Amino acid sequence: MDCIQNQYKFIVHELITVVIKRGRGPLRILHTADWHLGKHLEGWSRYEEQKEFVEEIIEIADDNKVDMVLICGDIFDTTNPPAEAEQLFFQAMDYLSKGGERVICLISGNHDSPNRLMAPGPLASRQGIFIMDEPRGDRYKLDDDRVLNRGQGYIELEINGEGVVLTALPYPSESRLNQVFSWTGDDRAVQESYSRRVGQIFSHLEQYYRENTINIAMSHLFVAGGQTTRSERPIQVGGSLTVLPEHLPEKSQYTALGHLHRYQIASSARRAYYSGSPLQYSLSEKDHKKCVNLVELHPGEEARIEQVELTTKKPIEVWEAEGVEEAIKMVEANKDRSVWAYLYINVDKTLLQSEIKKIKEIKKDILCINPITPEEKYEWETIKMPDEDLDIMELFKEYYRKTKKVEPDDDIIRMFSSIVNDTREKGEHDETAAS
Amino acid sequence: MDCIQNQYKFIVHELITVVIKRGRGPLRILHTADWHLGKHLEGWSRYEEQKEFVEEIIEIADDNKVDMVLICGDIFDTTNPPAEAEQLFFQAMDYLSKGGERVICLISGNHDSPNRLMAPGPLASRQGIFIMDEPRGDRYKLDDDRVLNRGQGYIELEINGEGVVLTALPYPSESRLNQVFSWTGDDRAVQESYSRRVGQIFSHLEQYYRENTINIAMSHLFVAGGQTTRSERPIQVGGSLTVLPEHLPEKSQYTALGHLHRYQIASSARRAYYSGSPLQYSLSEKDHKKCVNLVELHPGEEARIEQVELTTKKPIEVWEAEGVEEAIKMVEANKDRSVWAYLYINVDKTLLQSEIKKIKEIKKDILCINPITPEEKYEWETIKMPDEDLDIMELFKEYYRKTKKVEPDDDIIRMFSSIVNDTREKGEHDETAAS
Repeated sequence: MDCIQNQYKFIVHELITVVIKRGRGPLRILHTADWHLGKHLEGWSRYEEQKEFVEEIIEIADDNKVDMVLICGDIFDTTNPPAEAEQLFFQAMDYLSKGGERVICLISGNHDSPNRLMAPGPLASRQGIFIMDEPRGDRYKLDDDRVLNRGQGYIELEINGEGVVLTALPYPSESRLNQVFSWTGDDRAVQESYSRRVGQIFSHLEQYYRENTINIAMSHLFVAGGQTTRSERPIQVGGSLTVLPEHLPEKSQYTALGHLHRYQIASSARRAYYSGSPLQYSLSEKDHKKCVNLVELHPGEEARIEQVELTTKKPIEVWEAEGVEEAIKMVEANKDRSVWAYLYINVDKTLLQSEIKKIKEIKKDILCINPITPEEKYEWETIKMPDEDLDIMELFKEYYRKTKKVEPDDDIIRMFSSIVNDTREKGEHDETAAS
Repeated sequence: MDCIQNQYKFIVHELITVVIKRGRGPLRILHTADWHLGKHLEGWSRYEEQKEFVEEIIEIADDNKVDMVLICGDIFDTTNPPAEAEQLFFQAMDYLSKGGERVICLISGNHDSPNRLMAPGPLASRQGIFIMDEPRGDRYKLDDDRVLNRGQGYIELEINGEGVVLTALPYPSESRLNQVFSWTGDDRAVQESYSRRVGQIFSHLEQYYRENTINIAMSHLFVAGGQTTRSERPIQVGGSLTVLPEHLPEKSQYTALGHLHRYQIASSARRAYYSGSPLQYSLSEKDHKKCVNLVELHPGEEARIEQVELTTKKPIEVWEAEGVEEAIKMVEANKDRSVWAYLYINVDKTLLQSEIKKIKEIKKDILCINPITPEEKYEWETIKMPDEDLDIMELFKEYYRKTKKVEPDDDIIRMFSSIVNDTREKGEHDETAAS
């Protein structure tokens, strides 16, 4: 009798579990990154396009009943963004959060000033917008009711009755790794490679994951093997600031990344994805489809990931013409299309100012008008089909080969690498000091 | 019988009115201005002192059960404040608003970038922090529940069951008056004097006042006759950007002003007050007591105004010594006092680098060490006792007299005035363009 009763109890319990699970539905996440608010292209503002993609992302979030938005760094293009970009940011946050209903988590990238980005944190966190990791005061009510727990690098939330643990690592510059993450351990550890140290941080943060919670991670970094474009400011020199896939979070069900502007899987084994930027930000991105990632999650289950393509309102194009006459015809034919055009004209002699003026009169927002003489043909080919994996070190080697007619030796390469790194670290310090 | 009943009814109604009025208690306002977050003094940061006055103002607001805080412009010292200043601002807003409980209204001054200040408006207004007049979206719930009505230049709130109408005019620069307040009327009106146009705006806004509401106003401007110091960036040239008391709001029960750093009554007849800045920001403010104003208001009644003095944690002082030896003794005797000291030393010969070094070693944060030769004695007297009403036009006239040995004629004065105004307008435009 007891046995039968227990069996019933078990069945009822199982049924309830299933019903609750079904009832809860999945957690729906929208993953985006690299908004670069305030960015220009050849001196032209992208503000109008940025307003448009913000609108589109809000629409996608609404249509897909998104519960949580992750914005993985490089939200602004500079550490000191124009007021217009800040206005767009705050308006976007307010609309995207539906006035506080939908949770947003964001981190700084290598373009952002972490301090400036985190400044509005106290106000933002009260309506479910969490700038990881802003310094928090300890007065009055902290955050909003959905926050169960919070500390450096992680937040635990309750969304639709489901526990969600998000670990977050804002862009870890060399100097930031040393300053902020001093808890990574002993001197020896600090001496170890960048990638290993990043891995240690992720491992440390994974302690907050639990079996019955949805476990996710977000960061802004360059995963070794990723496909770059020309508009990410390189954070790796000679590979020293790349992170190996094996050092990405191990137990995260979905790791949302920012930095690379092209949508890509950073590591299948580690379930790590780049959403890419929402706009084509440089010539080398001219054929990229842009998207956001929609992710559906249940505790302990595999994530369902869907790419949602964004409409490209004003794509980047390269136009190549044989001679000025053809160029003018080409511009005339395309003058009403909404495109950012780089115009290259094969010529025997240099272009006249009057010819340039005439072309610009036909299409005011043409980006560049470049004459190409037969001798420049080779260079032009490299521009047209940029080697997207070329990093600053490769460019240096190529330059060295061309000018010195020999390969640079190891000493030279090491010296160059250390100069570049020093300059960058100094730049970061200057920004910190200036802030 | 009916008559007696009616009499009773009347008495009961009167009693209820009295009880409700008593029950409601007054509206308690804290009025402050000119925080100048991010400001330096002779290259020294005032950040620590600014953190302290923010703390003190929060304490005063808490102790006095303040319902509403008015911050009347020049919240930041520059249009592009450092991240540190922004962090202090947001933290202050969060604490001062008690996480959304207490209403805060703020406006931009001539030092602020209106666009940058208003950027976080969408988030801020949801927790009762109103940056007048930030552009507002029309999606989702607007503002918070206390807002009954809102439009350009005014907001109507319900606080403790009492209706409060606040009209607000952020710093009205010449160009802003023309751009934003184009509704002031016809071309002729625009040609009229600055003061009259400001008066027209206030008159226009007063239509929102009602008999049964508490009616107040806030602005950032220079009221003719006000006592200046050397740390307000002058907004008046030859008097053209001053506002006559008769053009201040007529029906406001209390008009809270910012711009002048010294506490003062701008106009008794118009019930307009400057709270002054919370810190001594320049040498000419060295003897100022700093304060905030506490104001108690009932509809239709006279305001009860109380100055609450702020503690001066690090006052500005001028030390004058006869010779280097006395100077060293003086610095030695005062080395542990928390003061910003300008040291003037009467000398016959110039100071040696070694002497300057010695003094600085005794007191690191000494602001200036100035030797005064007998010939410089006259200039020094003017520094020590600055003529606080001297504006840029007066300085120009004095300079002209000294160098040309004649009085400048009207043409010269007009030309100088227009150059100064043009430069300022250009500065504003550049900022707008840059933003």
